[in-house]
Amino acid sequence: MITIEQNNTINNYRLNPAQILVLGFASIILLGAILLNLPIASKTGESVGFVNSIFTATSAVCVTGLVVVDTGTYWTMFGQIVILMLIQIGGLGFMTMATLVAFVIGKRISLRERLIMQEALNQFNISGLVRLTKHILFTTFIIEGIGAFFLYLKFIQEYEAPKAILFGIFHSVSAFCNAGFDLIGEGRSLTPYVDDILVNVIIWLLIVIGGMGFTVIMDLLTFKKFSRLTLHTKLVLSITGILILTGFAFSFIVEFNNPDTLGNLSIKGKLLGSMFQGITPRTAGFNTLPMDKLRMASKFFIIILMFIGGSPSSTAGGIKTTTVGVLILSIISIIRGKNDTEVFNRRIAKDVINRALAIAVIGMLWVAVVTMILSITEANKDFLDIFFETVSAFGTVGLSLGITSKLSLIGKLVISLTMFAGRVGTLTIVFALGRKQQNNKGLIRYPEGKVMVG
Amino acid sequence: MITIEQNNTINNYRLNPAQILVLGFASIILLGAILLNLPIASKTGESVGFVNSIFTATSAVCVTGLVVVDTGTYWTMFGQIVILMLIQIGGLGFMTMATLVAFVIGKRISLRERLIMQEALNQFNISGLVRLTKHILFTTFIIEGIGAFFLYLKFIQEYEAPKAILFGIFHSVSAFCNAGFDLIGEGRSLTPYVDDILVNVIIWLLIVIGGMGFTVIMDLLTFKKFSRLTLHTKLVLSITGILILTGFAFSFIVEFNNPDTLGNLSIKGKLLGSMFQGITPRTAGFNTLPMDKLRMASKFFIIILMFIGGSPSSTAGGIKTTTVGVLILSIISIIRGKNDTEVFNRRIAKDVINRALAIAVIGMLWVAVVTMILSITEANKDFLDIFFETVSAFGTVGLSLGITSKLSLIGKLVISLTMFAGRVGTLTIVFALGRKQQNNKGLIRYPEGKVMVG
Ligand SMILES: [K+]
Ligand SMILES: [K+]
Repeated sequence: MITIEQNNTINNYRLNPAQILVLGFASIILLGAILLNLPIASKTGESVGFVNSIFTATSAVCVTGLVVVDTGTYWTMFGQIVILMLIQIGGLGFMTMATLVAFVIGKRISLRERLIMQEALNQFNISGLVRLTKHILFTTFIIEGIGAFFLYLKFIQEYEAPKAILFGIFHSVSAFCNAGFDLIGEGRSLTPYVDDILVNVIIWLLIVIGGMGFTVIMDLLTFKKFSRLTLHTKLVLSITGILILTGFAFSFIVEFNNPDTLGNLSIKGKLLGSMFQGITPRTAGFNTLPMDKLRMASKFFIIILMFIGGSPSSTAGGIKTTTVGVLILSIISIIRGKNDTEVFNRRIAKDVINRALAIAVIGMLWVAVVTMILSITEANKDFLDIFFETVSAFGTVGLSLGITSKLSLIGKLVISLTMFAGRVGTLTIVFALGRKQQNNKGLIRYPEGKVMVG
Repeated sequence: MITIEQNNTINNYRLNPAQILVLGFASIILLGAILLNLPIASKTGESVGFVNSIFTATSAVCVTGLVVVDTGTYWTMFGQIVILMLIQIGGLGFMTMATLVAFVIGKRISLRERLIMQEALNQFNISGLVRLTKHILFTTFIIEGIGAFFLYLKFIQEYEAPKAILFGIFHSVSAFCNAGFDLIGEGRSLTPYVDDILVNVIIWLLIVIGGMGFTVIMDLLTFKKFSRLTLHTKLVLSITGILILTGFAFSFIVEFNNPDTLGNLSIKGKLLGSMFQGITPRTAGFNTLPMDKLRMASKFFIIILMFIGGSPSSTAGGIKTTTVGVLILSIISIIRGKNDTEVFNRRIAKDVINRALAIAVIGMLWVAVVTMILSITEANKDFLDIFFETVSAFGTVGLSLGITSKLSLIGKLVISLTMFAGRVGTLTIVFALGRKQQNNKGLIRYPEGKVMVG
């Protein structure tokens, strides 16, 4: 009897991987907030206030990009570099960083640590995880380096060398990590570059590659034929492609003659601007068109795209492309009267479909609750603006119709929490809140009861 | 080979129960629309136009209550009686009516017809279904009769006898069938009776009893102790109770000092008005407060309640109380780390949970697509108004922030289709669209592929 009690106590004090993940992220945010709260972080020489620091640090670590003060205008270079580092840490995931540290100091990685990493990276197997982590770091720095170089070529035409280098690195990291922070100033994001081909293509590539997930990148780097790629890669590529093209076509048609967005641009500008609209809801958060001037239909369409977000094990947020893909395939299979959900000559397991359904429903519940709270605390604002802001935070997108800095204190805290939940994954939070899985064997199991639904 | 071909052809021409259900409802709507399109249906002596007739007939048969022309002001007594009959037919379900006809003319009911009824009533067993149908009709007419009598006692104080009788019957049927049509005139719904106890209590009871579902009513009519009731009844009663009390408390707090709604009412009026707000989203569609004057938070809260709606096998719409209950219980069981979802000492089967998830996701997809279409066709209107209208149509609720009559032609057709889908059930539509369930035995089954979601 006493033994059992002790075991329970020990189990209660031992954190599960999901809890460690949540606490780790929270610690980094807190550390970042303390740094950003220092007077030397702000150009005014006065602290920005702790709620604003928490908000900014959360937004950076959760690679969201929502800002209460403009990153380019308000923060000193110290502040901007803190933000850059928070983005990089958040983007790679603190577990990968921990692996790097362990790797550098030669410490052996225990099975327990590997399990934690598995949770963080949402990977299939423990074996090869350390190798994968090295690949992740190497690949990330290579890609970000290339991106920074090309962006530097553009920025050096406008700014002096040190600033152009910082701008190149900052925007490359911010794009690859799908963070959406920018240093352009005055909340303009990338609107000055709406019809600049170089900036557009580099940012597109960084966003899309960063949002595909490391597993897909690794798979693609083997340069196999499409048919030899894994099912996961095929799904990610197809769905990402469909989402981008749909977003592009939708924006092009709906905004074509909107004088505040595409209307006054050349055809080149219209095409580049629409393409950016199709890509940025893959939770990047940059924008080249003024978001608040979009038509209502475009705003709602972007809400849907933001809710979907990027792909698993990437720096992107949202419920993920594959979740939506699996759900749509599953509904198609019901309509076709098939027992199995099939794609690319493979069958998708029932528990994957159930997990996808759970993720979608929990996501929608979360968005509904947050929108509800904000529609009380921000009663003076427009519903669509609030709804957009909520989904943007949940999907860690960072696009806004302009209300972020005008949020009430409670509003800022709720949005911070939503960014956090969106980043570490609602399911992880649910598991973190939960106790250890109970072993039902030997316990009395209730008889099944009949319930009608729907 | 030829034999197989022929079999397939026969199977293709044979309608499945779901298809018969959909076609049956559609036929009744068409018949209703033809009658309402007649000049004698309208007080102006001129036809209301076919799209408006289709809209009104769909709204009546689908017991929604959204109206493009005010029921009390525009239609003649002929038109109002057509609407009353469409509501009664829709509410009871045309399959129950068909059973009545079969019962009256003494025709034996085939197994095939019983299966169709099963689909319509969403029942567990075929046996006893004919008996149940008789009970349904008997119980419905008794309850509606009692309701009509009490409402008559109120209306006779204001109108002459024939009108008071029609008003009593019409509003009793409309409330029990959760139809939400009213004859009060000038689009006021029941606002003149916001602080009238008799009208409030009678309408509450009719709405709640009608929205619980026939199985629950039957179960309750045996007058057992709560613990002896079926799991389904317990769930319906608990969740309905929670939803009503939550809606009541929310309205009372949020609208307490809103001068356009509860603000200028006495405490009695405030309590009655809030209670009505808690009950009417159980897809009734009546209102005693001006909906467009509610605070933003109240509007969004009602959207959520409308989406949930009433209980299965009732006259109510929405994704249903039990669906939401099962989902919440399932999420709680995940948090608690339990394998089984349990409630009232019973375990809920995995496939019920999956079905609930599918219903919720398909419902949200449908609402998202319709809102998307309307935000293009109704670009001049407010997003919250459009979203509210869409969910109201999907949940066959009938509440509106005032845009129904101002909808564009496409908007009216899309809302009609949404009411239809909401009534016959999105899943039924999906199955109706689908082919016969394929037998996978003997076919090649694809190997399972790995996909990460979320
Ligand atoms: K972002
Ligand atoms: K209704």
